[in-house]
Amino acid sequence: MARALEGPVPVVVMGLGFIGQEIARAALASSEVELIGAVDTSPQLNGRPLAEVLGQPVGKLKVSDSLERALGRRKGAVLLHATGSRLPQVMDQLLEAVKLGVPVVSTCEELAFPFLKHPELADKLDRAAQKGGVAVLGTGVNPGFVMDRLVATAGQACGPVRRASVTRVVDARTRREALQRKVGAGLTEDEFFALVDKDQLGHVGLVESAALCALGLGLDCDDYEEEVAPVMAEEDISGGAFPVRKGRVAGIFQSVVGLDDGQERVRLELTIAVGAEDPRDRIEIDAEPKIVVEIPGGVSGDRATANSLVNAAPRLTAAEAGLLTVLELPAGR
Amino acid sequence: MARALEGPVPVVVMGLGFIGQEIARAALASSEVELIGAVDTSPQLNGRPLAEVLGQPVGKLKVSDSLERALGRRKGAVLLHATGSRLPQVMDQLLEAVKLGVPVVSTCEELAFPFLKHPELADKLDRAAQKGGVAVLGTGVNPGFVMDRLVATAGQACGPVRRASVTRVVDARTRREALQRKVGAGLTEDEFFALVDKDQLGHVGLVESAALCALGLGLDCDDYEEEVAPVMAEEDISGGAFPVRKGRVAGIFQSVVGLDDGQERVRLELTIAVGAEDPRDRIEIDAEPKIVVEIPGGVSGDRATANSLVNAAPRLTAAEAGLLTVLELPAGR
Repeated sequence: MARALEGPVPVVVMGLGFIGQEIARAALASSEVELIGAVDTSPQLNGRPLAEVLGQPVGKLKVSDSLERALGRRKGAVLLHATGSRLPQVMDQLLEAVKLGVPVVSTCEELAFPFLKHPELADKLDRAAQKGGVAVLGTGVNPGFVMDRLVATAGQACGPVRRASVTRVVDARTRREALQRKVGAGLTEDEFFALVDKDQLGHVGLVESAALCALGLGLDCDDYEEEVAPVMAEEDISGGAFPVRKGRVAGIFQSVVGLDDGQERVRLELTIAVGAEDPRDRIEIDAEPKIVVEIPGGVSGDRATANSLVNAAPRLTAAEAGLLTVLELPAGR
Repeated sequence: MARALEGPVPVVVMGLGFIGQEIARAALASSEVELIGAVDTSPQLNGRPLAEVLGQPVGKLKVSDSLERALGRRKGAVLLHATGSRLPQVMDQLLEAVKLGVPVVSTCEELAFPFLKHPELADKLDRAAQKGGVAVLGTGVNPGFVMDRLVATAGQACGPVRRASVTRVVDARTRREALQRKVGAGLTEDEFFALVDKDQLGHVGLVESAALCALGLGLDCDDYEEEVAPVMAEEDISGGAFPVRKGRVAGIFQSVVGLDDGQERVRLELTIAVGAEDPRDRIEIDAEPKIVVEIPGGVSGDRATANSLVNAAPRLTAAEAGLLTVLELPAGR
């Protein structure tokens, strides 16, 4: 039987970039958590009233420069962490939190399934979390929801799965300018590939989603093939943060194919481009019965990512200590 | 971190009606469970080789007349239970299993959320399951998946939910004759309502789904309004197990509206009729962001129900003892 709720769970937000601010707003809107602090070490933010940063009333909270100061004497808080996409880059922050006995839900894309690219860091973090007696989870909308958790849930109605594919198409015009830049909008094809080579372009976390997908559907994959290509503007595109001329890059197409002994078992295809047609999420599971799940328009990225973190927070306080994945989260609030 | 798999979980199927047979087949197809026995007390089935009942090879298993005999000396088995829709009717079987220390996953529709209609039985069962140290769960496709668990999962990407609605339309021609009869196909309107009054017609479990939906989305509902109406054939309908003439009942429409202080928060609408147009499942969650999830064609009922039970079985062996709901199940296999 479900546990009785014991009042809202205190949460601290770390990282007040665009997504961190969205998380803070989502936390303020939720009756299940209570925002008790915010951390950001950047000189422009540190020490400022949080209300000023968010542009909405939040009481007297100020932005702290450390988690310990943000927590103060409050016990039982969960950290909502949004400072980076790559695990090595945020590892120290995660370790600091678990040493303080603070569970973490993070937007760090590589943390959604760290066992693939960073098995040693994953192991180190898992042990530290167990020692601290707290759970650590990477989630968001993608990875964390639409291309993995939702797929695994849909697969609960299926028999043995032969193959699964997920398509996500996002019209980047509905997203912030930084994201439009991040997918290469406005670049030439050469500029696009130069940035891809430097790992400065594109979505992080697709291969992690593919691995979660496979695991959640009971599929074995021994290899993942990744592909990145530009989506070229076939005509002048307006309506975004800036116009994109015909012949320039409109955005990015990324795919990951999970293979088992050379056989395709999982295919994830992600398009994020200004002017992308028919934005949607689509899951297709080839099994008995075959299941197709469609989300017309697609799950909106930023707000939904913030909600995913906030909704997971109360669940983390009851979870087993260690490194979790979204596959282990229960369905309900 | 996910537990390592320790080989397939032994399962026993109880009740070899249509769904029970589907469950046995789904168990045979799964690498995560091992079918070790079957129980049915009906004189036509008891003692017969299971292979004969299922019409497929299953080794030397015979249908037993008791759970204890079906289990033999095997430890750690889970009962896949499919003998009835109403909790009072199956209560003794559930109590027997938990007394034997056997976790139960059941198709019993009222068990999906027994706290609403049978709070005392739910409490009794919860205590017995805790005493037996095992988990008990009611699931299936509906209730258990498409109108509740999937809705709660979709809601994980949403902020505070204002309202949710779920529509399920099933063309009964794709289902077995018994189901076509169960929804009243071929009856006159008077015959239809006479059977509704005697509780002999219609789908059991819609109000349970509504309660799960509300709980899973963090909504409070203090009242549930149920409605049942016939779907009339507007022309002669063929293609089913029997023809339905124009003016006769083609099937059933049922709805449940969950209210909070008179305000509609949850609406579930279920149509099962021969010739129903545009069969589908559709979830709409009114929140930030708004999310619409569509399953074109709808999740096929019988096979998917069987899979839901089989896929839940390994999870039950690791679950906390007591009465669970699908909202507490993790996403992955």
